[in-house]
Amino acid sequence: MSWGVDWRASTSLVGTVVKYLSLTMLVPLVVAVVYGEDIAVFVVSIAATAVLGLALEQLDPEPDVGPREALVLVSFAWLAAAAVGTIPYLIAGNGIPFVMAPSAPASTLANPVNALFESTSGFTTTGATVLGEISTDRHSHAVMMWRQLTQWLGGMGIIVLMIAILPELAVNGAQLMQSEAPGPELQKLTPKIVETARALWLIYFGFTVLYVAVMYGLQFVGLAENMTLYNAVAHGFSTMPTGGFSPEAASIAAFKPIVQWVAIPFMVAAGINFALFWHVVRGEFRSLLEDTEFRAYAGATAVLIAVLSALLFRGAAPPLELGGTTAGATENALRQAAFQIASLLNSTGFATSDFAQWDDHTKIFLLFTMFIGGSAGSTGGGVKVVRWLVVFKAVRRELFTTANPNTVRPVRLAGQVVDEDAIRGIMGFTLLYLVLFGISAVFLGLDSARVGYDLTVLESVSASLAALGNIGPGFGRLGPFGSYLDLPDTSKLLMVFLMWIGRLEIVPVLALFVDRLDRS
Amino acid sequence: MSWGVDWRASTSLVGTVVKYLSLTMLVPLVVAVVYGEDIAVFVVSIAATAVLGLALEQLDPEPDVGPREALVLVSFAWLAAAAVGTIPYLIAGNGIPFVMAPSAPASTLANPVNALFESTSGFTTTGATVLGEISTDRHSHAVMMWRQLTQWLGGMGIIVLMIAILPELAVNGAQLMQSEAPGPELQKLTPKIVETARALWLIYFGFTVLYVAVMYGLQFVGLAENMTLYNAVAHGFSTMPTGGFSPEAASIAAFKPIVQWVAIPFMVAAGINFALFWHVVRGEFRSLLEDTEFRAYAGATAVLIAVLSALLFRGAAPPLELGGTTAGATENALRQAAFQIASLLNSTGFATSDFAQWDDHTKIFLLFTMFIGGSAGSTGGGVKVVRWLVVFKAVRRELFTTANPNTVRPVRLAGQVVDEDAIRGIMGFTLLYLVLFGISAVFLGLDSARVGYDLTVLESVSASLAALGNIGPGFGRLGPFGSYLDLPDTSKLLMVFLMWIGRLEIVPVLALFVDRLDRS
Ligand SMILES: [K+]
Ligand SMILES: [K+]
Repeated sequence: MSWGVDWRASTSLVGTVVKYLSLTMLVPLVVAVVYGEDIAVFVVSIAATAVLGLALEQLDPEPDVGPREALVLVSFAWLAAAAVGTIPYLIAGNGIPFVMAPSAPASTLANPVNALFESTSGFTTTGATVLGEISTDRHSHAVMMWRQLTQWLGGMGIIVLMIAILPELAVNGAQLMQSEAPGPELQKLTPKIVETARALWLIYFGFTVLYVAVMYGLQFVGLAENMTLYNAVAHGFSTMPTGGFSPEAASIAAFKPIVQWVAIPFMVAAGINFALFWHVVRGEFRSLLEDTEFRAYAGATAVLIAVLSALLFRGAAPPLELGGTTAGATENALRQAAFQIASLLNSTGFATSDFAQWDDHTKIFLLFTMFIGGSAGSTGGGVKVVRWLVVFKAVRRELFTTANPNTVRPVRLAGQVVDEDAIRGIMGFTLLYLVLFGISAVFLGLDSARVGYDLTVLESVSASLAALGNIGPGFGRLGPFGSYLDLPDTSKLLMVFLMWIGRLEIVPVLALFVDRLDRS
Repeated sequence: MSWGVDWRASTSLVGTVVKYLSLTMLVPLVVAVVYGEDIAVFVVSIAATAVLGLALEQLDPEPDVGPREALVLVSFAWLAAAAVGTIPYLIAGNGIPFVMAPSAPASTLANPVNALFESTSGFTTTGATVLGEISTDRHSHAVMMWRQLTQWLGGMGIIVLMIAILPELAVNGAQLMQSEAPGPELQKLTPKIVETARALWLIYFGFTVLYVAVMYGLQFVGLAENMTLYNAVAHGFSTMPTGGFSPEAASIAAFKPIVQWVAIPFMVAAGINFALFWHVVRGEFRSLLEDTEFRAYAGATAVLIAVLSALLFRGAAPPLELGGTTAGATENALRQAAFQIASLLNSTGFATSDFAQWDDHTKIFLLFTMFIGGSAGSTGGGVKVVRWLVVFKAVRRELFTTANPNTVRPVRLAGQVVDEDAIRGIMGFTLLYLVLFGISAVFLGLDSARVGYDLTVLESVSASLAALGNIGPGFGRLGPFGSYLDLPDTSKLLMVFLMWIGRLEIVPVLALFVDRLDRS
């Protein structure tokens, strides 16, 4: 069962990824030290992860990477990250028999399926949770920070990070990056792929630092007393990767309106192609303003905010109590609308209000928003704006040729002819996304029927979309202030699968399976 | 504003269609005579329709039909049929001022928007209703039979019927038929398109006669006392075109189980490519069994019935009272499952039970079923089985070429290579269908918000799908025993548009608009 793949080479490289992941656990270790919490959880986790990574790495000291190995590496590096990410949860929840007592006894993450769900949800920047009680007291500041950090590590891409720090991977770097985020275009910012990877991570890092500084600054000047340095960092780890986890049970609703307003432009930025920021930093502002996808993304954001504001102002959300003074009600409706659109359009999933309690007209509107996705080259999930643009133009071309048979008309995006193979790939991706979404929603519905759990149609549909689009919250009991804890294990594992293939934009994982089937 | 179209020629041909439609109103006129009902409604309707048709026809005595004229003819012939079809409803509901009292005073169809909705729903074989009270006493047997007949006229295609009876249209007949049902393949059964059109209508007519004979036979031998000749004909006019209207308020649930069982194979047959029956009649049974689409359709039917039976037997439908004796409960679960799948898979929309009252697991399963559609060349609506087959194979090919770059692999269906242009057209159609469905669902939700009507997400979604897929019933208050009466007029008009473009498989109508836009 070789699948035509050099498994030793692929596994060795996955080992390298795991080895470096152990170092990232130093962050929660430092948090544990600062807060005087049990450091054993992360000492053991770091040791276990490092040993595992080093062992796998030994399988092939000089790995070669061809097209199939790239698919395997990318697919399995993410699975390995999700698996290794469970170690702190499992140790904190269960302890180690005869050696260590649990530091968070009876945590829902002591269950391996739950731990895998939470870890996958973090690395894939989904932000769907099965944590019973969201609290730094209950789970320690260190474990809660690890939960936040997983999102940040996944945001710009684990493989992109590896390429940035390991020049030897760069030989096949372009192909690897393409597989990790096979959007329609991977803009090479510089002739060398290593430098492109570094530039992307630098911009990402810069935005995160800016976010932390601004948020902590608000607390510093007395405008947001609960935006501690811990909270500023924790939400920085969640905002820029469009993650959505929060160490606060009330998510961003725990903070003052000023904090919510400040978060909005950062969320919007997280959904923009990071390559455009690279041009902006170099003074080329026009590349931003002239970018077709950016204009569509910005336009969609504005229109959706306007419609949602109108709905909210008309009283679509009873829990918001939009009565009050006119100015207050207007500010509240505008803020909630801007925040929710910025958060759901690009798949962040933060909430300042329990939109699962809003009325049905608003829910179907938010559901629609969740289908769009961020920009290619951003940390946002979903189908992505540029794909919808190409689909729209390709369908329009089909209609045109129906009325004008025997005419040939290329599809253009920003004046450039889009390659027919790329169009076919994009149409195939979008159909695959929609079909997988539909079939998974039905599976979730039937799986709940099997165990006698009353999952509504809206809950089934939103769970499927929230996982595949890496969005996080759904509707009903799966809303932003709810959790996926009560779903059957089979449903949780399906969601793990959906989050995984959703983050990798479906293609590498399924390409491997199809390739295998077609060869057997 | 010529749109590059010879409007006089197109309108003249639409006039011919209208002229012949006036003759079809002789059927309800005969019904009125037999039941001793007011004949004035249909005498006036026939006269008005005939005069209108003849007048339009005069615009161009010798019309030429090019590609654009074909699109206009097909698109507008259906609109004209729907418009003319409202005449009996409007006259029955309103009478004629100073001349004639209404024969069905205060009918909901006295409202022009409602009349247009009901007429469009009939001709497009959607079967969604805004009739307040479904009763032959209230509306006369004649008007209720006209409502049934509109479905039968629309079922095999108004244009196909015209080609069958008007040889002069046959010059561009193939293109016309292709536009009316632009499925991926129009099988020419005979070298001459007129004969193909006649063969299709003959098979359709034969099935309808057989249905009426069998159903009336059941009454004749005392197995179904309420299956009168009127009911047998009325349901024949509804079953073979996958329509779904019934003159009985309880739809097929008004009849005994034996009637329901007998209806099932006819509904299944209505979703099969009629070209295959033509081969079967000529003794070529293998063409049926070897047809890829038929096998997929039959397989899907069997699997969906099995799953739904299991759900129902586990008690997913409280109103069915599936307790009782084991044999009775099993028969009931099997019958309801087989009937509902046969009815919803190919877009018929008949019901033997109010599935809008079933549990949510079952609802999401039925919703999924409603996305599939019948076969190409059948009277069924929706995306259609063969398109899903091509989409599946095309996506699989994309995944294969991801793992095997630089390989070229054609998509094959039943051993035949599918043309790349056809694949692109099918992917474009399917995406357009799904996107139109989604956007329309959101529009219906927002439109109801505008007037303060509480349409749920499930109701919005099902209304959009029920109209675009020509299915008919939705969920909630829009279920098989409910009606669309309470929706705002704007929503009803959107549904009229969706039914129209859904019946024409979207392409001709939108192709005209896009062509216009691109030329301006
Ligand atoms: K997210
Ligand atoms: K129907």
